[in-house]
Amino acid sequence: MKVGVLTGGGDCPGLNAVIRAIVRKGVQEYGYEFTGFRDGWRGPLEGDTVRLDIPAVRGILPRGGTILGSSRTNPLQQEHGIRRIKENLAKLDVEALVVIGGEDTLGVATRLADEYGVPCVGVPKTIDNDLSATDYTFGFDTAVGIATEAIDRLHTTAESHMRVLVVEVMGRHAGWIALHSGLAGGANVILVPEQRFDVEQVCAWVTSRFRASYAPIVVVAEGAMPRDGDMVLKDESLDSYGHVRLSGVGEWLAKQIEKRTGKEARTTVLGHVQRGGTPSAFDRWLATRFGLHAIDCVRDGDFGKMVALRGTDIVRVPIADATVRLKTVDPRLYEEVGVFFG
Amino acid sequence: MKVGVLTGGGDCPGLNAVIRAIVRKGVQEYGYEFTGFRDGWRGPLEGDTVRLDIPAVRGILPRGGTILGSSRTNPLQQEHGIRRIKENLAKLDVEALVVIGGEDTLGVATRLADEYGVPCVGVPKTIDNDLSATDYTFGFDTAVGIATEAIDRLHTTAESHMRVLVVEVMGRHAGWIALHSGLAGGANVILVPEQRFDVEQVCAWVTSRFRASYAPIVVVAEGAMPRDGDMVLKDESLDSYGHVRLSGVGEWLAKQIEKRTGKEARTTVLGHVQRGGTPSAFDRWLATRFGLHAIDCVRDGDFGKMVALRGTDIVRVPIADATVRLKTVDPRLYEEVGVFFG
Amino acid sequence: MKVGVLTGGGDCPGLNAVIRAIVRKGVQEYGYEFTGFRDGWRGPLEGDTVRLDIPAVRGILPRGGTILGSSRTNPLQQEHGIRRIKENLAKLDVEALVVIGGEDTLGVATRLADEYGVPCVGVPKTIDNDLSATDYTFGFDTAVGIATEAIDRLHTTAESHMRVLVVEVMGRHAGWIALHSGLAGGANVILVPEQRFDVEQVCAWVTSRFRASYAPIVVVAEGAMPRDGDMVLKDESLDSYGHVRLSGVGEWLAKQIEKRTGKEARTTVLGHVQRGGTPSAFDRWLATRFGLHAIDCVRDGDFGKMVALRGTDIVRVPIADATVRLKTVDPRLYEEVGVFFG
Amino acid sequence: MKVGVLTGGGDCPGLNAVIRAIVRKGVQEYGYEFTGFRDGWRGPLEGDTVRLDIPAVRGILPRGGTILGSSRTNPLQQEHGIRRIKENLAKLDVEALVVIGGEDTLGVATRLADEYGVPCVGVPKTIDNDLSATDYTFGFDTAVGIATEAIDRLHTTAESHMRVLVVEVMGRHAGWIALHSGLAGGANVILVPEQRFDVEQVCAWVTSRFRASYAPIVVVAEGAMPRDGDMVLKDESLDSYGHVRLSGVGEWLAKQIEKRTGKEARTTVLGHVQRGGTPSAFDRWLATRFGLHAIDCVRDGDFGKMVALRGTDIVRVPIADATVRLKTVDPRLYEEVGVFFG
Repeated sequence: MKVGVLTGGGDCPGLNAVIRAIVRKGVQEYGYEFTGFRDGWRGPLEGDTVRLDIPAVRGILPRGGTILGSSRTNPLQQEHGIRRIKENLAKLDVEALVVIGGEDTLGVATRLADEYGVPCVGVPKTIDNDLSATDYTFGFDTAVGIATEAIDRLHTTAESHMRVLVVEVMGRHAGWIALHSGLAGGANVILVPEQRFDVEQVCAWVTSRFRASYAPIVVVAEGAMPRDGDMVLKDESLDSYGHVRLSGVGEWLAKQIEKRTGKEARTTVLGHVQRGGTPSAFDRWLATRFGLHAIDCVRDGDFGKMVALRGTDIVRVPIADATVRLKTVDPRLYEEVGVFFG
Repeated sequence: MKVGVLTGGGDCPGLNAVIRAIVRKGVQEYGYEFTGFRDGWRGPLEGDTVRLDIPAVRGILPRGGTILGSSRTNPLQQEHGIRRIKENLAKLDVEALVVIGGEDTLGVATRLADEYGVPCVGVPKTIDNDLSATDYTFGFDTAVGIATEAIDRLHTTAESHMRVLVVEVMGRHAGWIALHSGLAGGANVILVPEQRFDVEQVCAWVTSRFRASYAPIVVVAEGAMPRDGDMVLKDESLDSYGHVRLSGVGEWLAKQIEKRTGKEARTTVLGHVQRGGTPSAFDRWLATRFGLHAIDCVRDGDFGKMVALRGTDIVRVPIADATVRLKTVDPRLYEEVGVFFG
Repeated sequence: MKVGVLTGGGDCPGLNAVIRAIVRKGVQEYGYEFTGFRDGWRGPLEGDTVRLDIPAVRGILPRGGTILGSSRTNPLQQEHGIRRIKENLAKLDVEALVVIGGEDTLGVATRLADEYGVPCVGVPKTIDNDLSATDYTFGFDTAVGIATEAIDRLHTTAESHMRVLVVEVMGRHAGWIALHSGLAGGANVILVPEQRFDVEQVCAWVTSRFRASYAPIVVVAEGAMPRDGDMVLKDESLDSYGHVRLSGVGEWLAKQIEKRTGKEARTTVLGHVQRGGTPSAFDRWLATRFGLHAIDCVRDGDFGKMVALRGTDIVRVPIADATVRLKTVDPRLYEEVGVFFG
Repeated sequence: MKVGVLTGGGDCPGLNAVIRAIVRKGVQEYGYEFTGFRDGWRGPLEGDTVRLDIPAVRGILPRGGTILGSSRTNPLQQEHGIRRIKENLAKLDVEALVVIGGEDTLGVATRLADEYGVPCVGVPKTIDNDLSATDYTFGFDTAVGIATEAIDRLHTTAESHMRVLVVEVMGRHAGWIALHSGLAGGANVILVPEQRFDVEQVCAWVTSRFRASYAPIVVVAEGAMPRDGDMVLKDESLDSYGHVRLSGVGEWLAKQIEKRTGKEARTTVLGHVQRGGTPSAFDRWLATRFGLHAIDCVRDGDFGKMVALRGTDIVRVPIADATVRLKTVDPRLYEEVGVFFG
C-alpha cells in the first residue's frame, strides 16, 4: 500500500517529528510505501512529489520547519482542483493520504473525503492552539517557550530604565500564546483577541505597577483590539502569519501608554522567531505520538478521522469536528489569570 | 484568616511559582495572611517560620528551588510529632495548611487531616511524574527538557567517534523522564524501571544501529534493572534523589555493551542538573494554576483535597488518591514507543 | 575610603557582574566602603544613593540589567551640574568614583577628572562593541548569542516557505552585532552601517541563493543605509536604543526585495530582547575581570584610566582614548566574511 | 589543486564550521578541489575518503561533531605509517593537507611536514583551551557555556536543601574550563590541575559559605589533585576524553567534605555533554575565521604554519609552537579569581 503525506499552512515546530513517526511506523510495522507531496496541496495538485522513506526521515526529529515544504495553495479555489488531485493520486498509486495542517488544509481533506471518497487521515496543526477537539496542538509549547524566554529577558531591561515594555506575540483570533507566555513570564497585563481591552484600564495597571517600584511588561496578542474602537490605523504591514495587517497593536498601545501615563514605553514584536527552530521536548513527544496514531488510522481503514490529544491519550475524532469551532480562551480562565495584573 | 504553606521532599522547578500564586491570590482576593514554614515538616514541627507576603514572592516565578527550603523530615517518625505540629499551628494562629510535596509529604498531610483534624490542602509535586490522579506534575517538563537537550548534544559526539552513549536519567520507580526525553531526543534504546531489560536485546539494537552507519544513544532510567539479575553490584553512591544506591546502571550497562558488542561505550549521568534552575513555561503555567486552585480550596473549606491536572482543567481529588498507587509507564505506551528502537 | 559606583546609558548584560566584582574585592581585600548612585549621573547630581555592600551584590551575577538603575541624564547639560556633583560627593565623603558606561557617560567622567579633579576610574560598556581601546565590551557576546539563536530559528521557517527573511539587529554606527551574528547564523547577506549597500546587489545574492534551492536570510544592522539614498522615509519609531528613528531599514529592505525579485520577504526586528536577560559566560567573565581591575586602579590611585581587554589581558588606558574614535568594522574583515554571501 | 582535510582527536563544537569555511573559500575564491579524509589520520593512512564540495558543507555550521569523523589513530605508531600516507596522497593527487586537531594530531603534521616534505597547514583544536600560541581555541566557549548553565541550575537545588554541590568539569592538565565556568557560575570554590588543593582549605570555604546562609558550589577540574596525596584510588572509569582514569575527583571530594564538615554533599559529573551539540556564536565565529585563514595559508604556500587567535586578529605561527608547551592557568589569574572563594 502506498500512502501520501503532505503538510499545509504556516510552518510549526514538530512537523518533521510527525512525518518521521508516520514513516518509521508505516514502513517498519505495516510495510507501507510513502510518497511525500511538496508544498501542501500544491504537491498532489501538480503531481510534485518527494522521496519519503526511512533514510529521508533520519535526523529530522529536532529540526524545525518541514522537509516537505508548505504553502497555502487551496485546490478548492482552482479549476478542477479536486479532480486533478484524484487523478494524480491514481497515477501515483497513492491509496490514502495523511494530511497535516490547520483549519484550511484540513477543510480540503474533509471535502476530498466526503465528496470524492479520497481516504484521508488528519493531523491537526496550529501554532496558535486554537483548534477544537484537541487539548493542545504541537508547536504551541515551543512558541510559548520562546515568548516566555523573551519576556524574561525584557524584565531586566524594563527594570533598569523603569520603562513599560509591550511585547506583541502571535495570536490573531485566539490568545493562547499571550495567555500562557504572559503568565509564565510574569507579565503585568495580558491582552487577548477574545476580549476587547480598555486602554484606561491598561494604563491603570501600568501605573499601579510603577507605584510598587517595578517596571511593567504588557503582553498583547497580535489580534487584540481596544474596546472603544479608537484604534488608529497606521500602516500596512505583514503579521507573523504572513497576512497583511492594518496596524501593529503593540506599537499603537505603547504610544497610548506613553501619552496617557507619561512613562516611557517600548515595543518588541516577536514575529517569526516564535515559529521556527527546534521543537521543545513536549512538542516532539506530542507530534511523534500524533504521527504514530495517524498511521494506525490508515492501517485500521479509519478514514475521515483526525488524531487529537485528550489528557495524556491520543484519540480519533471526525476531521470536521476540528474546524467546526475555533477554540478561544475561556473568559473564566482569563479572569483566573487576572489576579496577576497590575 | 492565617494560612500556613510548606514545601517538602526533593526540590522541583515550579515550587516558587506555586507559592507565589497562593500568596498573590490569597492576599489580593481573599484577604488572607500567610506563614511560611521552613524546610518542609521541620518548620511546623519546630515552629520555624518565614515571612510570606506579596513583597516576599516578587520575582520568584522564574527561580528554581523553593524560597521556603525543603527537607525530608517526617513528623510521624518523631516523638509526639503530630502533637507538636498541632500546638505550633495553634500558637501561630494558623488555621489551614497548604502542603506542597510528594508521596511522603502528602502522606503526613493525610494523617494530620484525617486523624487530627488539621485542615490541609495538598499540591502534588514529583519530578518523576509518578503520582496518580494527575496527568502531569510540575518540574517534570523541565527535567525532560534538560535531558532532551543533553541527548541532542550527545548525538554529535556519538556520531563523530562512532561510539555508544549511555545516558542515565532520573526515575527510580517510574520511567517517565526516560521515556519522554528518550523519545524526544531520538534515542535508539529506552530502558525503564517498569520492565526488566535484556542486555542481549539492548546489544542487538546497538549493533543494528551501527549497521545503518549511525551511533546509538541508550537512555536508561536510574531504576531500570536487567532481566536476568546478573547485575554486578559495584559501588555505593548516591542517586539524584540523594539516596544511597548500590550501583549505577548506566556505567554497568556501558561496560556490558563494550564487552558484548566490541564497540566503545561512554556513560553520562545527568544527576541533579535535571532538577535545578528555571522552570519551563509549561511548568510555570501548571504550578501557577495549582497554586491558584489550592487557595480556592482553602477559601471553599474544601480540605483533605489535592489539586490535579485533568486534560486542561484543574480538579480536586482526595489527597489519599494521589498516593494510593504509583503512576508507572503503561506497557502499551512503552510498546508504542518501541518502534524507534534499534 | 568610600568609593562611589554608577552605571549610565543603555542597559547591557554584565553590568551587575561588574558591580559585584568591584564590591567583593573592594570590601574583602581593601576594606573600602561603597556608595551606589542611582540611575547614572542622576544619582550624584541629586544625591540619590543606594546601599552597596556584600549582601547587596549577592546573587546578582547571572542577572541582566543593573541593580543601580540607569539613565541618560547628562550633568554637562544641567546648570551647575558638575558643581552639584562635586558638592554631593563631598557631602557623602565619596573620595573616588567608578563610572561604568559608554561614550557619553565616560565623557562626563573625563571632564570631571580633567577639569574638576574628581578621581574617576572608567569601565567601558557598549552592547555594540564600538569602543576603541578594548578588544571587546561585555554585553556584546550575549547580544550576538541571542541574535544568532534567532537566526537559527528563522532558517527553518524561511526554508519551509521558500521566503526571504530579513533580520534587523542592533548597531546604529557599527555593524559588529550584524557581522558576528550574521556569520555565526549562516546568513546569506550581512549589511552594516560602515558600508552603504546596493539594493540590486542584495537582490542578486537573494536570487542566487534561491537558485541553489535555499531560502536566504538577510541580516541588517539598524544603522545600515542603501547606497543611492533612495530610502523612503516611512514612519517615526524608536530604535532599540530608545532613540527616534526615521524608518526601519529591515522593513524597507524586505519591501524592496519583494518588489525587485518577486519573492516573498518577511522582517523580524529583534529589538530590546538583544540587551536583556542573563549574560553569557563570556560576558560574566569579562565583566567580572573589568570590575576586579577597576577597583585595583582605585587602590593604586591610578585615576583617569579605563580598564580594557587586550587579548586575554586586562590593561589600563586613558579614559579619553575610549571615546576618541568609534571602533567600526574594518573593510578587510567585512570583505573576508563576504565569501559567504549569496 | 586538490587539498585534503582531516579532523583528529576528541570532537569539539566548531569543527564543521572550520571545514565549511575552508571549502567555501577554497572552491569559490581559489578554485580548489577538496578531498575529505575519514576519521583523522586513519583516512590518509587507509585511503578512506569522503566527498567534500559545497553541497557537502551546506547546513553544517550549527552542527556539533565533525562530518569527517574523528579518531585517535597515530600513523607514527604504525608500520610505514608515514610512507603509506605519502603514497595515498600521491595516488589521490592531494597536494596539500589541512590538519584540524590537537597536540597529537598536529604533532603528526609537524613530522609529515618537516621530515617528509608533505605540505601541511594546521588548525588548532582543543576543548580545554590549553594550546600555546593562540588566545582561545574553538569549542572552549561552548563547553564553558554548558558548564555555566549547569552550575546556574545547581545553585537552586543546593540552596533548597542547604547542600554542597561538587561539579566536576573537563580539564585533565589545564583548569581553563573550571576557572571560566566556575567564575561565571558564581562557584564558591574552584579547583584546577595546576595547583594541588588542600582539602582542609576547601572545607573551610564550604563552612564559611554556610555561615553566610548560602549553600556552596565547588567546581573541580577532572585533573585536579589534593595536595597531600591522600587521594584514595577508588575505581577505574573513563573520563570525558575517553581515557581510563583511576578515580573521580568530584565524588572523592564530596565524600571528604561530608566527612569533615558534616554537611551533605552531592556530585555532578558533566562529562561528554560539554563537548557535543551546537557551537556557541563565539565558537562559530572563531572556527570560521580559522578556516578562512587556513585556506589562505595554502594559497600562499605558507606551509608548516598553524592559524592562531591574537586579540581579534588571526595570525600564523609555526605548528611546532602550538605543541611546545601546554598553556596552563597562570597562578596570578587563579589568585585574582580567588576573591570569590568562600
